[in-house]
Amino acid sequence: MEKNRLRIYPDGIEGFVEKDITILEGLEKLGIKLETLCGGAGWCGQCIVKITGTASDISSNEKNLIPDQMLKEGYRLACQAIIKGNIDIEIPPQTRLYANQILTSGIVLEKAKINPAVKTSRISLPIPNLEDQRADLERLEDIIGSKISVSNLDVLRKIPIILRENNFNIEAVLYENELIDIRKTDNKPLYGIAVDIGTTTIVVYLLDLTKGEVDVASSMNPQAKRGADVISRIDYSSKGGLQELKDLVLSEINLLIEELCSRNGIEPTDIYDITVVGNTTMIHLFLGVPPSYIAVSPYIPAFTRSLLFDAVQLGIQINPKGKCYILPNISGYVGADTIGVVLSTRLYKGDGVKLALDIGTNGEMILKDGEKLFACSTAAGPAFEGANITYGMRGAKGAIDHVNIDNGEINIHVIGDIQPIGICGSGLLDAIAVMIELGILDDTGRIKYPEGKFIKDLVRKGENGLEFVLKANGGEIPINQRDVRELQLAKSAIRAGIEILLEETGREYSDIDTVYLAGAFGTYLDPESAVKIGLLPPLPISRIYSVGNAAGEGAKLALLDKDMRRTAEEVSRKISYIELSSRKDFQEKFMEFMYFEIKR
Amino acid sequence: MEKNRLRIYPDGIEGFVEKDITILEGLEKLGIKLETLCGGAGWCGQCIVKITGTASDISSNEKNLIPDQMLKEGYRLACQAIIKGNIDIEIPPQTRLYANQILTSGIVLEKAKINPAVKTSRISLPIPNLEDQRADLERLEDIIGSKISVSNLDVLRKIPIILRENNFNIEAVLYENELIDIRKTDNKPLYGIAVDIGTTTIVVYLLDLTKGEVDVASSMNPQAKRGADVISRIDYSSKGGLQELKDLVLSEINLLIEELCSRNGIEPTDIYDITVVGNTTMIHLFLGVPPSYIAVSPYIPAFTRSLLFDAVQLGIQINPKGKCYILPNISGYVGADTIGVVLSTRLYKGDGVKLALDIGTNGEMILKDGEKLFACSTAAGPAFEGANITYGMRGAKGAIDHVNIDNGEINIHVIGDIQPIGICGSGLLDAIAVMIELGILDDTGRIKYPEGKFIKDLVRKGENGLEFVLKANGGEIPINQRDVRELQLAKSAIRAGIEILLEETGREYSDIDTVYLAGAFGTYLDPESAVKIGLLPPLPISRIYSVGNAAGEGAKLALLDKDMRRTAEEVSRKISYIELSSRKDFQEKFMEFMYFEIKR
Repeated sequence: MEKNRLRIYPDGIEGFVEKDITILEGLEKLGIKLETLCGGAGWCGQCIVKITGTASDISSNEKNLIPDQMLKEGYRLACQAIIKGNIDIEIPPQTRLYANQILTSGIVLEKAKINPAVKTSRISLPIPNLEDQRADLERLEDIIGSKISVSNLDVLRKIPIILRENNFNIEAVLYENELIDIRKTDNKPLYGIAVDIGTTTIVVYLLDLTKGEVDVASSMNPQAKRGADVISRIDYSSKGGLQELKDLVLSEINLLIEELCSRNGIEPTDIYDITVVGNTTMIHLFLGVPPSYIAVSPYIPAFTRSLLFDAVQLGIQINPKGKCYILPNISGYVGADTIGVVLSTRLYKGDGVKLALDIGTNGEMILKDGEKLFACSTAAGPAFEGANITYGMRGAKGAIDHVNIDNGEINIHVIGDIQPIGICGSGLLDAIAVMIELGILDDTGRIKYPEGKFIKDLVRKGENGLEFVLKANGGEIPINQRDVRELQLAKSAIRAGIEILLEETGREYSDIDTVYLAGAFGTYLDPESAVKIGLLPPLPISRIYSVGNAAGEGAKLALLDKDMRRTAEEVSRKISYIELSSRKDFQEKFMEFMYFEIKR
Repeated sequence: MEKNRLRIYPDGIEGFVEKDITILEGLEKLGIKLETLCGGAGWCGQCIVKITGTASDISSNEKNLIPDQMLKEGYRLACQAIIKGNIDIEIPPQTRLYANQILTSGIVLEKAKINPAVKTSRISLPIPNLEDQRADLERLEDIIGSKISVSNLDVLRKIPIILRENNFNIEAVLYENELIDIRKTDNKPLYGIAVDIGTTTIVVYLLDLTKGEVDVASSMNPQAKRGADVISRIDYSSKGGLQELKDLVLSEINLLIEELCSRNGIEPTDIYDITVVGNTTMIHLFLGVPPSYIAVSPYIPAFTRSLLFDAVQLGIQINPKGKCYILPNISGYVGADTIGVVLSTRLYKGDGVKLALDIGTNGEMILKDGEKLFACSTAAGPAFEGANITYGMRGAKGAIDHVNIDNGEINIHVIGDIQPIGICGSGLLDAIAVMIELGILDDTGRIKYPEGKFIKDLVRKGENGLEFVLKANGGEIPINQRDVRELQLAKSAIRAGIEILLEETGREYSDIDTVYLAGAFGTYLDPESAVKIGLLPPLPISRIYSVGNAAGEGAKLALLDKDMRRTAEEVSRKISYIELSSRKDFQEKFMEFMYFEIKR
């Protein structure tokens, strides 16, 4: 086969790869993996490189995503350009910097009780004799002292051998009342895995079931190459891609488990239990259950309840006798991840009015008022994740993540303190708040020159009309009218959802005692800005808490404490789901909250 | 490959087969299957044929089993003689006649209630809309009206598709509260399979779960080629043969299921439930669980309880979503087959003292006295099955199965009314009873000339001392001293067991209201002879009932009526198992009942 030489700068790596593969694949073969949001599908623009040599013609994706000038200079998308001869490749620092940060940790509001579903019981059995001829299994049960069941034939097959090899001193592994394994007593800990399957990222936690978290690993969801959001994934699955999507997420999870095992020196067979959260579509895809009817009105999932399966049925590579517990979902668009948030924030507990928000492409929100729980979901669009914003990006190195005014001066923070390459959701939120404060926006969201001419060059006329310019570390990132409109759509969708939930409970926003903000965006945003732009109602900032990856925390809770599974099931049944798409009042509120409230 | 011509007489079939296979295999390739007790292991002598041509040398098995004169005439065992050239084969009528009759039917003492564990529920679901967004599974559950579970992922995967293909009119298949399948409503009946795995024979019943028995199929247990009795099978399994024995019985059961399906025009996927009985070792082997410790003191099985598995785990070829229920065992030597007998005879019910006996190589017996149940097992040896008896055979065509004296004349019945080729258990029992009646036996069991010289030539001096000769249809079958001794050992083992059970309950034999005789031997024996030789206590004949394959009947009951499973489990826990091997009083009684009670 014909081989082509790739030379990579500034690494100085050189090697040969076959023809007709993408530069992205070629780089990977030489050991350089550019992890991108879209997984190589060509829509995120994160794998931009500069090349000299022979590659395929410029694709339409590249035309859309790369400015003309850069195209002329030889910039290409590594996932689009096909190797057709020897190529020298320069990887610009921004491209490497995109390396996605994934939010894995959550705030622990209340420590988990250690009461796992899988437990070991060390047993010393009386040796059988002619006066005591109880069968092995019945002997075991009598010592354990409660009725046990066996539904895995391999466990039954092991019993007589293991008992006698260990002179009737063994360790029984029980899942609730089911005997799922029997092994020699060698003080090996039992492990469990908590999985948070996001549309964009996957986080896998390794826990010692008697102690708590040991380690965490995460990666981009490889399904992204088949679509950025749940709707496009559902479409793909309905067109024959279900098995592929299932296999993609499964093998990624298995890889992460493998990584966690080797990093911590444990065997996959020491893992006996898994809990899984994710949005309803991700859960369907993980199980290989067709999610098709979630995408079309009236948006019906195949199931919402919690589920328990033998891990072996799912193809998860842990102990084949282990179990896999899927936390309950609430509706087609409020999933087990939201239940995870409810668990880890203990939203269901106590008195008062509490609101939990998990904002991504969809915004899921739950309002709790005494015994009542209401949930809804709104399609906020991807603006908060940096998509559809001219210089938008995820919260990674090089992103402007915070902007504020202090003593009349604009402070801009860039992740990694380098020259900015874009702006992420929290930065955009801050920027808009600053624009309001400076009088650069009117209440309809139109950009205008600031009246007091204060710091005049903040606003300039760009290609697409007026733009607000953020300058930092020798670089600048402009925000134009279209970007402001995208944010207006996103924030009013979320805010209108909150208002509908308040209406359902007959509450005023001022009754809300606590707001929990979950997820990456919720963690990094400035609550003050969120209130200022009207994403959140005008509450005292002291009532607003960021709780990090609260969904993942919920999965961990359900792993460490089986009672949390009962809680999740009870809570999920108590939640009233409000379908917004059919409500006129939602449309009205959506229009209303598009505006900003400008204090004059 | 070199081929050799086989010509088969009197069939006139001719064909070519490869060299170095046995004649038995060669015959099978030409479409003639000689089904034998030992499955071709060489110990039953049932495949005797007369050959002319080139075959391997005479084996030691053949020397033991074929009289010298016949060996000289060219008789060989088809399973031992290896084809080494062209051969003409004559299959004598006896060889074909051995074709084993298997007792499949039992006496129905009380009709089964139709209340199967697997049921269908025809459901017309309300069509989802924006006001009713319940998930598919939850919608189904609400209509069914009780909590249902799903543990098979394939069922979950089917739900959204099947519902919409059938416009939300479907049939749910439920195993108790578990949703095990969902299918279109087309009035297909649900079927179940009841299996009785004997050491020697396998019986498989096909039942319509809403009506009852449809058909039955049976065959020899192919494990026989690895040993005639449970002990030799356990030995074989302990030496690495466990998987092979499991596969042998499993594939035979699958063949019988296939036969039943094709004969009745049903699909294996229409079968959703299986119940299984068998002795404890057969159940272990069927499940692939090591039975090793049943064979050695203190005789401990891996389990005795009832078990429920997904059929797919076992490799049973029915609907992969179906279930398999194993009836409970009582001890290493009193198995689920005995529980089957207890169920079908309703032994556990009502007042009074009742005894159930299942006599084969082992004799299992249960005595019921009010609320108390006692069970034991004795190694009777294979005499009642015709083995170890000079002319012994199973109850098949050509076997003397009944002998009696009527008006001073001896009547002999031969199965098939042909010239006798041997004697089966019931015939032997009768013959010994006649010998007692005629004064040919003394109370120690010694054969002597009858005093009154009545029908003088009934007793003659043979090669092995005196023998009693049964003449019928132009043939004769002698019974010698060794045969009588074999029977004495067998009958005293059973009788001593009965006496121990009576002792446990503090009862006299006269307190026994009813005796149930189960199994082939129990079905065909003459109760009067059984009492006369002392196998049974001297009870009025009217209290003794033959109940046929009561074990299989029990499996059918548990299939048709799930409450019978609860009953089986409750009863099995109530039964006190008496281990005879450690009891001195059993040894004493065993000696005592070796004698006959001769009325002088």
